[in-house]
Amino acid sequence: MINITLPDGSVRQYEKGTTSLDIAKSISEGLARKVIAASVDGQTWDITRPIQKDAAVKLLTWTDKDGKNTFWHSSAHLMAEAVESLFPGVKFWVGPPVENGFYYDMDLGDRKITEEDLAQLEKKMNELAKKNNAYIRKEVPKAEAVKYFTDKGDEYKLDLLQNLNDGEITFYTQGDFTDLCRGPHIPSTGLIKAIKLTNIAGAYWKGDEKNKMLTRIYGVTFPSQKELDEYLQMLEEAKKRDHRKLGKELSIYTMDDDVGQGLIMWMPNGTVIIEELEKLAKETESEAGYKRVVTPHIAKESMYLTSGHLPYYADSMYPPMELDGEKYYLKSMNCPHHHKIYAAEPKSYRDLPYRIAEYGTVYRYEQSGELFGLMRVRCLHMNDAHIYCTKAQFADEFRAVNDMYQKYFKIFGIDKYVMRLSLHSPDKLGKKYVNEPELWKETEEMVRQVLIESKIPYVEVQDEAAFYGPKIDVQIFSVIGREFTLATNQVDFSQGRSFKLEYTTPDNQTEIPLIIHRAPLGTHERFIGFLLEHYAGKFPLWLSPVQVKVLPISDKFLDYAKSVAQKLKKADIRAEVDDRQEKIGKKIRDTELLKVPYMLVVGEKEMNEESVSVRRQGKGDLGSKTVAEFLKEAVAEIEERRE
Amino acid sequence: MINITLPDGSVRQYEKGTTSLDIAKSISEGLARKVIAASVDGQTWDITRPIQKDAAVKLLTWTDKDGKNTFWHSSAHLMAEAVESLFPGVKFWVGPPVENGFYYDMDLGDRKITEEDLAQLEKKMNELAKKNNAYIRKEVPKAEAVKYFTDKGDEYKLDLLQNLNDGEITFYTQGDFTDLCRGPHIPSTGLIKAIKLTNIAGAYWKGDEKNKMLTRIYGVTFPSQKELDEYLQMLEEAKKRDHRKLGKELSIYTMDDDVGQGLIMWMPNGTVIIEELEKLAKETESEAGYKRVVTPHIAKESMYLTSGHLPYYADSMYPPMELDGEKYYLKSMNCPHHHKIYAAEPKSYRDLPYRIAEYGTVYRYEQSGELFGLMRVRCLHMNDAHIYCTKAQFADEFRAVNDMYQKYFKIFGIDKYVMRLSLHSPDKLGKKYVNEPELWKETEEMVRQVLIESKIPYVEVQDEAAFYGPKIDVQIFSVIGREFTLATNQVDFSQGRSFKLEYTTPDNQTEIPLIIHRAPLGTHERFIGFLLEHYAGKFPLWLSPVQVKVLPISDKFLDYAKSVAQKLKKADIRAEVDDRQEKIGKKIRDTELLKVPYMLVVGEKEMNEESVSVRRQGKGDLGSKTVAEFLKEAVAEIEERRE
Repeated sequence: MINITLPDGSVRQYEKGTTSLDIAKSISEGLARKVIAASVDGQTWDITRPIQKDAAVKLLTWTDKDGKNTFWHSSAHLMAEAVESLFPGVKFWVGPPVENGFYYDMDLGDRKITEEDLAQLEKKMNELAKKNNAYIRKEVPKAEAVKYFTDKGDEYKLDLLQNLNDGEITFYTQGDFTDLCRGPHIPSTGLIKAIKLTNIAGAYWKGDEKNKMLTRIYGVTFPSQKELDEYLQMLEEAKKRDHRKLGKELSIYTMDDDVGQGLIMWMPNGTVIIEELEKLAKETESEAGYKRVVTPHIAKESMYLTSGHLPYYADSMYPPMELDGEKYYLKSMNCPHHHKIYAAEPKSYRDLPYRIAEYGTVYRYEQSGELFGLMRVRCLHMNDAHIYCTKAQFADEFRAVNDMYQKYFKIFGIDKYVMRLSLHSPDKLGKKYVNEPELWKETEEMVRQVLIESKIPYVEVQDEAAFYGPKIDVQIFSVIGREFTLATNQVDFSQGRSFKLEYTTPDNQTEIPLIIHRAPLGTHERFIGFLLEHYAGKFPLWLSPVQVKVLPISDKFLDYAKSVAQKLKKADIRAEVDDRQEKIGKKIRDTELLKVPYMLVVGEKEMNEESVSVRRQGKGDLGSKTVAEFLKEAVAEIEERRE
Repeated sequence: MINITLPDGSVRQYEKGTTSLDIAKSISEGLARKVIAASVDGQTWDITRPIQKDAAVKLLTWTDKDGKNTFWHSSAHLMAEAVESLFPGVKFWVGPPVENGFYYDMDLGDRKITEEDLAQLEKKMNELAKKNNAYIRKEVPKAEAVKYFTDKGDEYKLDLLQNLNDGEITFYTQGDFTDLCRGPHIPSTGLIKAIKLTNIAGAYWKGDEKNKMLTRIYGVTFPSQKELDEYLQMLEEAKKRDHRKLGKELSIYTMDDDVGQGLIMWMPNGTVIIEELEKLAKETESEAGYKRVVTPHIAKESMYLTSGHLPYYADSMYPPMELDGEKYYLKSMNCPHHHKIYAAEPKSYRDLPYRIAEYGTVYRYEQSGELFGLMRVRCLHMNDAHIYCTKAQFADEFRAVNDMYQKYFKIFGIDKYVMRLSLHSPDKLGKKYVNEPELWKETEEMVRQVLIESKIPYVEVQDEAAFYGPKIDVQIFSVIGREFTLATNQVDFSQGRSFKLEYTTPDNQTEIPLIIHRAPLGTHERFIGFLLEHYAGKFPLWLSPVQVKVLPISDKFLDYAKSVAQKLKKADIRAEVDDRQEKIGKKIRDTELLKVPYMLVVGEKEMNEESVSVRRQGKGDLGSKTVAEFLKEAVAEIEERRE
């Protein structure tokens, strides 16, 4: 018998040679139907592969990232099988899973793949999937493998074999198709219920433009048609909601070659959103007892040697400026500066928890190929704060931070979110992690307890903590279901020591505070990118750059329109008048395109009655209201930050 | 006869050999009594020196900087006369005027000067001043000058003579004292009515520590005793109001070696002031039709080559960071980024004036010896904005900016200010100034007209304009009379072209906008430094980091105190409770030291009556008020930003 340890820590005994599928079945038949792959001692395995010794096993389903990857990798093989049956003589290079699906690079000789070919291939793949052929794993000696692909005349796989040795070569076969592959794979093709080939591209062999151009076919598959339909609909929506497209249409931000890549310049409309977000953060943080600070964007090398950013994090920082014989760096985090403010005056237990917040601007070097709209940038405005507290205060403080996250989620209509609790790995203490085994256990348990008590959905991930303590990554989902990593929330029991931070206890002892790093609204860049997609640019009233547009039917009513706008402005409503000499129909259409929440049409009747004819973006005509009535309602909608 | 051109442009004729004093007398006897020196064709002259040819003459009085310098330089000679009469054998090195007074470096052999000696010297100087000896200028051939100081055994003056040639050597004599001196001087010692020797220091000859240490005596003099008394009182006050001292006592800001010199970290109290100032600026600018933007702190070299900052301004910038084969610079101005935002979308005359504002943070390299508290720093948060307008809009826009300055001055109780209008110099067109003679004339005249129409006190200064247009430097004076340069306000008809900024006119032509650069509140650093001194740390209620402190007489009333504070906080008043177990007397004293505007003392009576006993900083007991009453009054005081 062997001992199998499951993720909840329970240990079960099984026959030697049992499989992950057997284990799943022993738990429940339902689970067994959903299992795609398994993590065995940290490696992803086929669920039909026999386990010969004690092991830690985690069963992976479609909802696990590694589960999805296995599913898509098997789908790449299925596509290859279909390609080979339609276009015999094709030779394959590699076919990995990617973020949303998979691709396979292939040499089709002189043949060009067309859209129609893709339809044929999809049809073929569906046929082959229905056969429910098993993916059969076979360990193969190198000589045999070389012979196989030499006979087949496949120089690409022979190239791959060069770097492999006896004992590490496996073939996978499903139906008539055999591939050199490390695996793992799903048990059989029948699990693949829905298939969409999405794109054809060219790709140089090994990414080198001196090599031959191969054909790359992209696809995506799902365990049900419903999931594919949802995915395609999401793609359609995502295209309409692309934050780069909306960012330009709504004059939110701009970039410029002379300024530099990944450096966002916020135009007036984007700045309105920034200021509303900051106002919300300041109100919320002030209520929660935070104080605000302002720190410079640079510091000397010595600061980042103390913090440990240098030399380890140097690649992610801008290079130094040399001045007066010293090196200055653009800050990539706000924490060291905040620690210095903590340290500027002696602290006692009476000063704790000491919470300081700053919408700090940090600079991080991302490869230019990684830059993407507002999502991956080099200059980030971060909703940052640091809480210095005693161990006894920790749970309350950490809970308050989580409550703040949830408060924000409610305001922005974020119904779906999950927190990833990243833990340390005991075997990497002193290397990847501060060597404080007791503190790790203690703080991890404190964080876990808070999450459980707060009933927050969370998953635990081993070996992904920060250097100085466990962390929580917050993943949120936009209304169309796309996932965004919003922010991290970290516990830190190490930097307090590095920066010699202290407080005196009631009995006059000196202690080091725990530090919580938190940023519930993430960065302006990513969060506004998320909001653009989430709202499809139709921001709620309180966030809208222009909140009300007054549209006079003709120039005759321009003065009245202006007087209405003036009244609204007095009440801090962002109102404008469309004073162009255009027909009212065109004015309405243009304002719709700019996604202004309220349009107030004014003509003879409205002028005489001190009223406005109200149109709400997306809701159409709301009828006539007096100016005072509209004003009162709009102010309430803004103050309550209604969605 | 010769033609004398006066500053107002008028030309008068005088006999050849006339003096500035004669000219003054020809204008008025009162003026003649006040004239100290004269600027003759740009050089400062004795007023008794004959003028032999046509010249531009400006008569200088005590209120002119060059007038003061002449007065203090003559005072240094008077001090030297007194020193020589009390300590014969003394040898003198140099004795220039400085910012507030003058000094003279001297070799007194083995003698050490004491405080008592200073008193003696002052007495002697007063005696000599009363004699009203004339300062007599004499041109001396080099041989004669060398002989005079050789006979006197004065190696220091002989050293100075080495670098002088025949024709450029003059002696000045008053009473029994003769000095080698270029001049100019006041007519006679009698003008010096009040004398204070302020300090004794050591100074190496020629500033080289390998040389002999000379004795340096500092002093300051005035044309009346009243002015000296005021000066001494101002010094005393300035010491108490030193922004570095108050900045520390009130926890406004801190600096740290690991961050770097001249890089301010704003602590929570300082950040409250920053946020109140920004709120004021945002409200004011929003009302004035500005929109806000946010830009990064770096840009590529190409941006600063376009703007002309590189290479000319490179010494004042931080050195570049080299990344991806390109150079990035920390911005030292916000303008280029703002120009890029202007250029991001096509503009028509309907979009102008386009006013964009940002509390932008810029970095400037100041020599470490120049750094001084908040006054000279390397990171500056600037109340910046740029207005892009047509020529026809210019006067209105420029006037509106000046009105904004004056609005702010009123809020901060700045009664005394002056604007220095810096003009170009026609002979430096194409070198120091953009070569656009017509535009210079036109814009200078536009600015001058606005200043005259707005009745703003201003002076004109030749040859101090910015490269791209005339500018206004705003000098303000704190309540104790110290002068601060607050901000500059510039016209720019050049960068629009460099950055290819355009707008289309009503008849579809393309034009380049004029640009106004303005920053009425200067930088947070300098302005808060000024405010600390101006208010002696006793900020008006709206600016106070803590606005109200509730002081319970004993722990019995702590809950009531907290409930009062809570009510105040709900109304956005920054209130705290002094929950220490201290006597009420100590609580009051400690709160006074922190300069909190309102103290609310609460005990039995107050708790029963829902009232508070109000003390106002600097005004003492204001009696008992209900909580609601106090709240209403405090909110009004804050909203009106009462002084």
